[in-house]
Amino acid sequence: MFVSDACALNDAGHLTVGGADTVELAERFGTPLYVMDEEKIRRNCRDFTSAINKYFHGNGLAYYASKALCCKAICRVAAEEGMGLDVVSGGELYTALEAGFPPQRIAFHGNNKSEEEIFLGVEAGVGRFMVDNADELEALDACAAKLNKTVCIHLRLSPGVDAHVHDFIKTGKIDSKFGVAIQTGQAMELIRLALQKKHVQLTGLHCHIGSQIFSEEPFVLATQVMIRFMAEVRAQTGLLLQELTLGGGFGVRYVPADDPKPLDVYMQAISSALETTCSDTDLPVPALFFEPGRYIVAAAGVTLYKVGCVKEIPGYRSYTLVDGGMPDNPRYILYGAEYDVTVANKASLPKNYLTTLAGKCCESGDLIQENILLQKPQRGDIVAVLTTGAYNYSMASHYNRLPNPAMVLVRNGEAKPAIRRETYQDLLRNDL
Amino acid sequence: MFVSDACALNDAGHLTVGGADTVELAERFGTPLYVMDEEKIRRNCRDFTSAINKYFHGNGLAYYASKALCCKAICRVAAEEGMGLDVVSGGELYTALEAGFPPQRIAFHGNNKSEEEIFLGVEAGVGRFMVDNADELEALDACAAKLNKTVCIHLRLSPGVDAHVHDFIKTGKIDSKFGVAIQTGQAMELIRLALQKKHVQLTGLHCHIGSQIFSEEPFVLATQVMIRFMAEVRAQTGLLLQELTLGGGFGVRYVPADDPKPLDVYMQAISSALETTCSDTDLPVPALFFEPGRYIVAAAGVTLYKVGCVKEIPGYRSYTLVDGGMPDNPRYILYGAEYDVTVANKASLPKNYLTTLAGKCCESGDLIQENILLQKPQRGDIVAVLTTGAYNYSMASHYNRLPNPAMVLVRNGEAKPAIRRETYQDLLRNDL
Repeated sequence: MFVSDACALNDAGHLTVGGADTVELAERFGTPLYVMDEEKIRRNCRDFTSAINKYFHGNGLAYYASKALCCKAICRVAAEEGMGLDVVSGGELYTALEAGFPPQRIAFHGNNKSEEEIFLGVEAGVGRFMVDNADELEALDACAAKLNKTVCIHLRLSPGVDAHVHDFIKTGKIDSKFGVAIQTGQAMELIRLALQKKHVQLTGLHCHIGSQIFSEEPFVLATQVMIRFMAEVRAQTGLLLQELTLGGGFGVRYVPADDPKPLDVYMQAISSALETTCSDTDLPVPALFFEPGRYIVAAAGVTLYKVGCVKEIPGYRSYTLVDGGMPDNPRYILYGAEYDVTVANKASLPKNYLTTLAGKCCESGDLIQENILLQKPQRGDIVAVLTTGAYNYSMASHYNRLPNPAMVLVRNGEAKPAIRRETYQDLLRNDL
Repeated sequence: MFVSDACALNDAGHLTVGGADTVELAERFGTPLYVMDEEKIRRNCRDFTSAINKYFHGNGLAYYASKALCCKAICRVAAEEGMGLDVVSGGELYTALEAGFPPQRIAFHGNNKSEEEIFLGVEAGVGRFMVDNADELEALDACAAKLNKTVCIHLRLSPGVDAHVHDFIKTGKIDSKFGVAIQTGQAMELIRLALQKKHVQLTGLHCHIGSQIFSEEPFVLATQVMIRFMAEVRAQTGLLLQELTLGGGFGVRYVPADDPKPLDVYMQAISSALETTCSDTDLPVPALFFEPGRYIVAAAGVTLYKVGCVKEIPGYRSYTLVDGGMPDNPRYILYGAEYDVTVANKASLPKNYLTTLAGKCCESGDLIQENILLQKPQRGDIVAVLTTGAYNYSMASHYNRLPNPAMVLVRNGEAKPAIRRETYQDLLRNDL
């Protein structure tokens, strides 16, 4: 009935998330409110663990890409599920460490890490640095030397595989701010440079080919390109790379029309391409790492808003105004992202009222969805936007000085606060 | 030489803002850094004050639209310059009050104010509530009754004037989430409703026709529509409205090709339309309020970044990677906004290197400008993006858990901190 199986309908006709009545959650914790189904997150983590066991003989690890949603509570869940953690900044690393995430299972990403971030990572003993470019490699080696450590690294490469998605989220193509390209010869140059460095140990290669990918084909292509290049590396340098990170990008369902394939389909295809290409190139099968972010948290999240006004403009359209908007969910104004929306306290009623869901910001583009069908809303109703677990809280702004919403984790119907609602005092904490 | 007269070149060949060497500012305060030329802000405020004196016999007030950049330091500057202040949320109101801004010179905007925000505003004694819709009017009247106060209000109307700018920033047209339209009859209905309310006093009408407007024509049209409607209000209800708020939207120069007219041109045209239409309709000339935001702060601001890496992809393009990006300036990814950019420590050298200025976020769309000419940059250089005073800090996010930059105000070459740089601890303050 709902686009995410984190959601259901209860006897009161209310939307539930993880078994908790969303109308009660809104009443208890206020709105706007991010609600995360903890059990759903755990199931998504286990999807990856199972797939790695099944298709790669357990020789691999899924790193939760915390840029999708980074807070201590989620890091703790990922840690408990035995996941690795992909961090892209000192702030994400700091969050992970504060949550007690084991550093050796952390991979440190980023196309322009600062020297301070590199220092934090080396000092903390993160398991792998995903090195983006030669400048970073020099800085990392210098830092590791100073701390008398050796750091395990992967190099981020552009495999030239284009996952044919929205322009903003294509990252595997050659013209990219990320990594270095195989085709231009710069990848091999970077490998040779890495081999000269005394304080880094190059164990693998990394690529990430895009986001919201609905077909296994780009992953198969990327696997083939990367494995062939690993064979080329062995041929040219003698180095046998034993790890391959294939990034994330596994598509999720935002609206009923989205039809991502089951994870097994991707994994089986990747496994098959891996075996065949390794066999063709006489390369031992490397450990395989993945970095799912959206896949882990998107469908586990729902945002709850309260309706302040339903504005009907005769001959034009109707606007349903809620108490959040682009500051807590900028994905519509950024990408025109689609969402499934329902009136939580009228979830059993038919959606037959055409309206545009708008936020409270003084910005015309502050819309959450345009021209959607909803149960007829009125002031005081609770509106739920589904599948907001990824890139909502993490991209949130304070535009119009709106405080960030609170977040609760729900498990078996029980809600516990994960992030406190910001106060006005919080907003001014650094104001002088 | 630079797109904003806040900027100049000093003897060291460095870019200056408000007389301060930006390379020294970057060294002293770190990067990314928002730098605001306080004197430029004050000049911009005085432009409005002078224009109101010259064209409207002092019968009016300019309210700084603080959504463009809201922090205590800027509120204090606006207060000292005798400006009014336009706030759109409880957070902006709280900031203004904490800065000691006189409440009677505050106008409280917003298309969906919460009951808590209404209470804060009524209790603080803000000078004017800009009422958006009937639901808000009811809530405001009830709140004022409870506090035994009478609140002065304007009603926000859609005049049906379209300023022909970017889709996101058209707000005066009929199909809008803001206000109520004159043409549909809903504006007159709202006026009749306001007249029945005991705890509100309707003193004027409000419209806002768009942003980055480069021609006086839409302002003239809006003035005519609003005055004629005020005459219609008098005819139908007997109410003589003595105030008119024409909003903001006065365009500023982001790149050399932008050619906004001097403020005098808009003001003279508005004044002339006002006099003529009032005379035609036999209406006394109302007090005229404006709400400039971008005009006051945009050109006063510069963002400084440090270059981490210059990445050249043979046959494709070059990327200059800096230590900020879409979290501190989301206007390129949101609107494709253009900016003038210069390498601050090489500001006297020719711009002859074609590059794309990219941020440090793990997001392909995290670009600040694409394919621009710059002085050839290298790791460690300071890059300055000009005209970032408006809608940069105010729209900033923590995407990738990047802390918000610090902000300094510069006056006569002297810099003083206005906003402290966020720490990792700040980011986790509400994490449980």
